Amino acid sequence: MPQLGLLHGRVWAALLGQLLRPPRVVCIRAVHSHSQVAEAVLTSQLKPHQEKSNLIIKTPKGTRDLSPQQMVVREKILDVIVSCFKRHGAKGLDTPAFELKDMLTEKYGEDSRLIYDLKDQGGELLSLRYDLTVPFARYMAMNKLKKMKRYHVGKVWRRESPTVVQGRYREFCQCDFDIAGHFDPMIPDAECLKIICEILSGLQLGDFLIKESRDCHGSERKSIDKALGLLPLSLQVSDRRILDGMFAVCGVPESKFRATCSSIDKLDKISWKDVRHEMVAQKGLAPEVADRIGDYVQCHGGVSLVEQLFQDPRLSQSKQALEGLRDLKLLYEYLTLFGIAEKISFDLSLARGLDYYTGVIYEAVLLQNPAEAEEEPLNVGSVAAGGRYDELVGMFNPKGHKVPCVGLSIGVERIFSIVEQRMKTFGEKIRTTETQVFVATPQKNFLQERLKLIAELWDAGIKAELLYKNNPKLLTQLHYCENMGIPLVVIIGEEELKEGVLKLRSVASREEVAIKRENLVAEIQKRLFES
Amino acid sequence: MPQLGLLHGRVWAALLGQLLRPPRVVCIRAVHSHSQVAEAVLTSQLKPHQEKSNLIIKTPKGTRDLSPQQMVVREKILDVIVSCFKRHGAKGLDTPAFELKDMLTEKYGEDSRLIYDLKDQGGELLSLRYDLTVPFARYMAMNKLKKMKRYHVGKVWRRESPTVVQGRYREFCQCDFDIAGHFDPMIPDAECLKIICEILSGLQLGDFLIKESRDCHGSERKSIDKALGLLPLSLQVSDRRILDGMFAVCGVPESKFRATCSSIDKLDKISWKDVRHEMVAQKGLAPEVADRIGDYVQCHGGVSLVEQLFQDPRLSQSKQALEGLRDLKLLYEYLTLFGIAEKISFDLSLARGLDYYTGVIYEAVLLQNPAEAEEEPLNVGSVAAGGRYDELVGMFNPKGHKVPCVGLSIGVERIFSIVEQRMKTFGEKIRTTETQVFVATPQKNFLQERLKLIAELWDAGIKAELLYKNNPKLLTQLHYCENMGIPLVVIIGEEELKEGVLKLRSVASREEVAIKRENLVAEIQKRLFES
Repeated sequence: MPQLGLLHGRVWAALLGQLLRPPRVVCIRAVHSHSQVAEAVLTSQLKPHQEKSNLIIKTPKGTRDLSPQQMVVREKILDVIVSCFKRHGAKGLDTPAFELKDMLTEKYGEDSRLIYDLKDQGGELLSLRYDLTVPFARYMAMNKLKKMKRYHVGKVWRRESPTVVQGRYREFCQCDFDIAGHFDPMIPDAECLKIICEILSGLQLGDFLIKESRDCHGSERKSIDKALGLLPLSLQVSDRRILDGMFAVCGVPESKFRATCSSIDKLDKISWKDVRHEMVAQKGLAPEVADRIGDYVQCHGGVSLVEQLFQDPRLSQSKQALEGLRDLKLLYEYLTLFGIAEKISFDLSLARGLDYYTGVIYEAVLLQNPAEAEEEPLNVGSVAAGGRYDELVGMFNPKGHKVPCVGLSIGVERIFSIVEQRMKTFGEKIRTTETQVFVATPQKNFLQERLKLIAELWDAGIKAELLYKNNPKLLTQLHYCENMGIPLVVIIGEEELKEGVLKLRSVASREEVAIKRENLVAEIQKRLFES
Repeated sequence: MPQLGLLHGRVWAALLGQLLRPPRVVCIRAVHSHSQVAEAVLTSQLKPHQEKSNLIIKTPKGTRDLSPQQMVVREKILDVIVSCFKRHGAKGLDTPAFELKDMLTEKYGEDSRLIYDLKDQGGELLSLRYDLTVPFARYMAMNKLKKMKRYHVGKVWRRESPTVVQGRYREFCQCDFDIAGHFDPMIPDAECLKIICEILSGLQLGDFLIKESRDCHGSERKSIDKALGLLPLSLQVSDRRILDGMFAVCGVPESKFRATCSSIDKLDKISWKDVRHEMVAQKGLAPEVADRIGDYVQCHGGVSLVEQLFQDPRLSQSKQALEGLRDLKLLYEYLTLFGIAEKISFDLSLARGLDYYTGVIYEAVLLQNPAEAEEEPLNVGSVAAGGRYDELVGMFNPKGHKVPCVGLSIGVERIFSIVEQRMKTFGEKIRTTETQVFVATPQKNFLQERLKLIAELWDAGIKAELLYKNNPKLLTQLHYCENMGIPLVVIIGEEELKEGVLKLRSVASREEVAIKRENLVAEIQKRLFES
């Protein structure tokens, strides 16, 4: 399994090797501070930085700049993700940052209130996109496309009250992969889960939590491989049809399906007792209905749980639930062939918020190692999620023609926070430039020679810098190289100029050799190739 | 000079070789249709595509989706640009899509009316960024940075009335490179011009128009090397201080400097006669003042024109103009060392719209070959521009501390239109995926084997696809490979399975060889490496 981006293989390998797999002992300590750090980072963004009379210099609430250091980390993460999407044959696509407001209505349910609208300055009413899925469906319908496998990396905007603990931003980057078209069942769905596994393994974020099967009345709990020191990572799958079927056979009136669903969705944050209370006291379910649901939503396991639910006397009454179970069974067959069935648990508590899902749903959640062995792992946050949405494209088609879709979205911000925090904890220094050679001189009035020389290097495709000074000190120039991690220095002086040579210095070893000027480019290229 | 992106060197080379350097004879024909095509493309974007009751499915006015084909071209162009920025030691930076509205006020002069505001939904008043320069200055001031060399690739938004002829969009991508900090004069400025030359040469967009020197009373005109068949490309430099000094000595009242400047800015679109009329009739300049200006703005040349203007009895009265001329002289000295002085003309008609420039300004414009030899080349549009803005960071600093800056912006949309149009003209087909191997079978009920096999390939980092069908026809599978340009096919059947072998087929030659299953990955990697 390739764990590295293909573009900068070796650099990336070195970086990730050091940064994403820290020494085991120390890591456990690091784990506990994630939420605090996310809080600190976000809080600092929300504070005014400077004042000029009344002008406060800051970025808007819930947004941030990415510094060069952060950009390097971001790009490495995106490389891993996009390489994986391309490995699976996806095409690229881009859509505008804003859509006609009408395109986004009735797609997100309650969350619609989080959409950013643009001011009416005359002309069309516009809104910033809320995700990349709805614009994709709009693109499919607008161009009358019947099938497409595409990826899209882009920013989306949501007016969330920044809950600092969870480190949520109002502007964030999503990486989406979707397969649209009529195909034989569960093959694209299985590929989406394979992609999530490849990306999360490639980023070495955490260890897949191999859940032990627990039947609906059992009491066994998760087994976490703490020895590896990474965060436990839980990848869960379910199906909207099983959920709806379960609600129906438990006696939930159809009008309360979505409300009940949103209570269930909280099970990863609050206990069953509290969820039950909410369902009875706030959502108005009968206590015995809630208890029946409780029997189901505490079930988790693998394909064996699917088999078991087929035999369940209550659930097997629901045609919808049976359809979902049949698809899940087939899905697990394919996941086994892909070698990832063990990493994915079937969990009836998985609900997913968005309205447009119609079938299989899945979510990968990073957990925090508990302080005490007996405690439950805490939910750090979702890092990947998705599912099947067979109706969305049809909503944009004048005749309602459907194009079934399944897809996934990688949550880059949270992955980024974890990687960044890990780097801070271990005091890693990363290069923010790729400069290979620095052009220096020990002499005054040598700017002209330096400029001529550096133009030669640039024209040969070599990444080169010099100081923008007429007469910089040699020590200043060498310090700059050490600070910036530039590996090579070309030194030109009067003597060298006279003899038609240059000195090539290795910053690490401080070794200097004289090289004929005409051989300089070739020698540098040789050294860069070897390193 | 490296003309290729470093990331996908060979692919890019092949692509650009074919696409950007079309046969000479045909190209001249292509050249004339650019504006028509830009018009057609934009018009199609502005038309409603479909209706569902009252719902019109389209992208907002002046925006567009980028299809997979367009994304490939876009990415190749960005690779060339970003590689160049990195070659010059720039760090990456990202800023939010929107800024506090206050950050953007008083930065763009008249153009401020083009800024997109967000709706007041409670909280801060926000606007979409108008360029990448002001957010950069805000970042520098907010973080109290004294120097930085950064690049930024991102979208910006402007509420332009889409003048379809010019192919302007309301959402477009900018690629910016800027050097901030106190340095010795003109070294960073010269590097910015070097970067523009490297990028425009690397993209092979046009031939630099080597302007012949023309003194202020001469009549010689441009020499265009039509034989090469590419568009003529004009790179001009001037200085705001020379412009202001010229206005002063010609008798323009200071209150009319900017208005006069905006008339001058039109000289690339309308004749001097019309500009003169506008200055006298609309801007209220005395006819003799306009005529004095006319003597200057029709001057163009190289460093010899700088020398000549030093001697100019009127202009040399202006301290400001002399400062500008001194800097331009030094700039030309450095441009000569960089080997690009010949490509850059000093043109007093260059004005640049934005308010924040304070010194050297420059712009690269693609021209259309005139239908007749005697005609002037027409202006197709600016593809790169920039200049020095020493006051902008200080506007964000509470104590007004200045950080001098110089930078450039590459206009990707226009470059993109030209490359895309060229590709259409030549009917080039480009691959929208990078898939290397297709997994096929001639037999029914072989999905399980195909899935197992493709997972092996993915896990080895090989880009692979299969059809999402239980029983696809072999011919359908092979056609898919030919259509998508996939070079290799692995074929698995009952016989192969029994013998532990697979067939590896070259799509181009249709040759098939049997390979032991355990050697498959190695063999594929060998073939991909060799190709």
